[in-house]
Amino acid sequence: MSFAVLQEKINAKKNPTVMGLDPKLEYIPKHILDEVTKEFGKTKKAVGEALFRFNKGLIDACCDLVPAVKPQSAYYEMYGLDGLEALYKTVEYAKSKDLYVILDGKRGDIGSTAEAYSAAYLGETDIFGIKRKSLDCDCLTVNPYLGIDGIQPFIDDCKKYDKSIFVLVKTSNKSSGDFQDIIVKSGKTLYERVAQSIVDWGNECKSEYKYNPVGAVVGATYPEQLASLRKTMPSTFFLVPGFGAQGGAADDVKPAFDENGEGAVVNSSRAIMCAYMRYGDGRDFGERAREEVIRMRDAINEVIGK
Amino acid sequence: MSFAVLQEKINAKKNPTVMGLDPKLEYIPKHILDEVTKEFGKTKKAVGEALFRFNKGLIDACCDLVPAVKPQSAYYEMYGLDGLEALYKTVEYAKSKDLYVILDGKRGDIGSTAEAYSAAYLGETDIFGIKRKSLDCDCLTVNPYLGIDGIQPFIDDCKKYDKSIFVLVKTSNKSSGDFQDIIVKSGKTLYERVAQSIVDWGNECKSEYKYNPVGAVVGATYPEQLASLRKTMPSTFFLVPGFGAQGGAADDVKPAFDENGEGAVVNSSRAIMCAYMRYGDGRDFGERAREEVIRMRDAINEVIGK
Repeated sequence: MSFAVLQEKINAKKNPTVMGLDPKLEYIPKHILDEVTKEFGKTKKAVGEALFRFNKGLIDACCDLVPAVKPQSAYYEMYGLDGLEALYKTVEYAKSKDLYVILDGKRGDIGSTAEAYSAAYLGETDIFGIKRKSLDCDCLTVNPYLGIDGIQPFIDDCKKYDKSIFVLVKTSNKSSGDFQDIIVKSGKTLYERVAQSIVDWGNECKSEYKYNPVGAVVGATYPEQLASLRKTMPSTFFLVPGFGAQGGAADDVKPAFDENGEGAVVNSSRAIMCAYMRYGDGRDFGERAREEVIRMRDAINEVIGK
Repeated sequence: MSFAVLQEKINAKKNPTVMGLDPKLEYIPKHILDEVTKEFGKTKKAVGEALFRFNKGLIDACCDLVPAVKPQSAYYEMYGLDGLEALYKTVEYAKSKDLYVILDGKRGDIGSTAEAYSAAYLGETDIFGIKRKSLDCDCLTVNPYLGIDGIQPFIDDCKKYDKSIFVLVKTSNKSSGDFQDIIVKSGKTLYERVAQSIVDWGNECKSEYKYNPVGAVVGATYPEQLASLRKTMPSTFFLVPGFGAQGGAADDVKPAFDENGEGAVVNSSRAIMCAYMRYGDGRDFGERAREEVIRMRDAINEVIGK
């Protein structure tokens, strides 16, 4: 769905927090692991079940509070086909709870291959003459290194299926500057040059809503760059990772929002998923996640005046 | 496995051709589609079976001729879990035929997530205290946009598990120049700057073999850039896509090879997989693929003096 729908959900819940679902086995409470190994043994099947049950518990506990979830594809791919099955079930379950689903896959390839990725997650695939959904997400993160060829198929599907993408601009990791901060001929950094292209691509698919479907990923760990990009990208919705476990705080993410306190979502994964670890044995992981979401929501709303 | 093993396989078969396995349903011969729909109906399960049977036929027909295969992950992801199951079966089957398997996933993310991707395809994943393989490939393509954080976990697994990676430098698509050709402050292009980092990263994990495990993707469609990169990257193995259907010819890929005609593999996907389409109904798709592989092998060997 479009960013207009995402913003509606944010406004309805008064919360711009995305719950990241990156369920490594080490993060999963003991009672869930005990349950699944009792049922399925110490198998990959048991892992898949554990990932899904943990996600389902987090979604059940927080779905009235958060507008969106962001499963990180890598954490499912690492557990093989059973992990991927858990991803599919998680996306389906999140949608049944009316959550906006951002798949964090950071896909990027040449045009024909980008078409296939877009069909996988945003559009449809031809199955013996019938168009069918594979993993029906609302939004996908995309890598810009291959240029517009590799982005256009996603944009086309955004228009056709009312979806959105977040293209990487300035990522939250320490070495994001290795290439993204390189000064290019015009005197700007590479990430500013990428940002400019995103603005251009987005302007070509403007809708009535202020924010077009071509969003940007800008890390909470670089608040100055975030502030400057907000100014140069007035119609670009932001996904802001790096809050919580990665070090970003509420003041750091404030510049991501527009004058109405809109136009951005802030992701936190480990801090929410693993909130229970500071307390007991994890039987209350849902309640602890809920407390952390509320803490994060209130902290952000305070700085953005919501 | 390391590039030393890949080069051994190339030398044994006198062929630096990688057979790309990008099996869209439209590419699959009618008799295979008839078979699977008869068995499974017009279902996603039937699609998964069709992808695998087509791949198996191509591998059976060409495994004595090619050293390596390169499945493109997107073409399996677009068919959902059944497509992914076909990918898993294809990788396993290719390995049973002693082929070197390069998974074309172009993964790239922050460090902790890159660890998960590397565990998925090169390393191992902890499953209830036991380290297990998920999809055990020899090599993975990787996107450099996030800098060394996002590359290091793959390099660590290359050392630990004797694997290799190909990092994107100059891709084969038309718009690869959008960002890759941007001139950076030093007067070089971004892709040359990325190439320099790859050389540095590779130098830190040198082995006895001339080529270290950190390879580079450089498209056949940019032969001048290929020639120049070969000079500045003397210990970097090249994966050269863009041959055949994308427009690259034997003369174009010549500069990818060193003075011994080594240090590079050239991929062709559609031209091999779909070779049958110019002739009959596809019952002979294996033979036609075989002819195309031989044609490509001989054309490349002629220009590199093998």
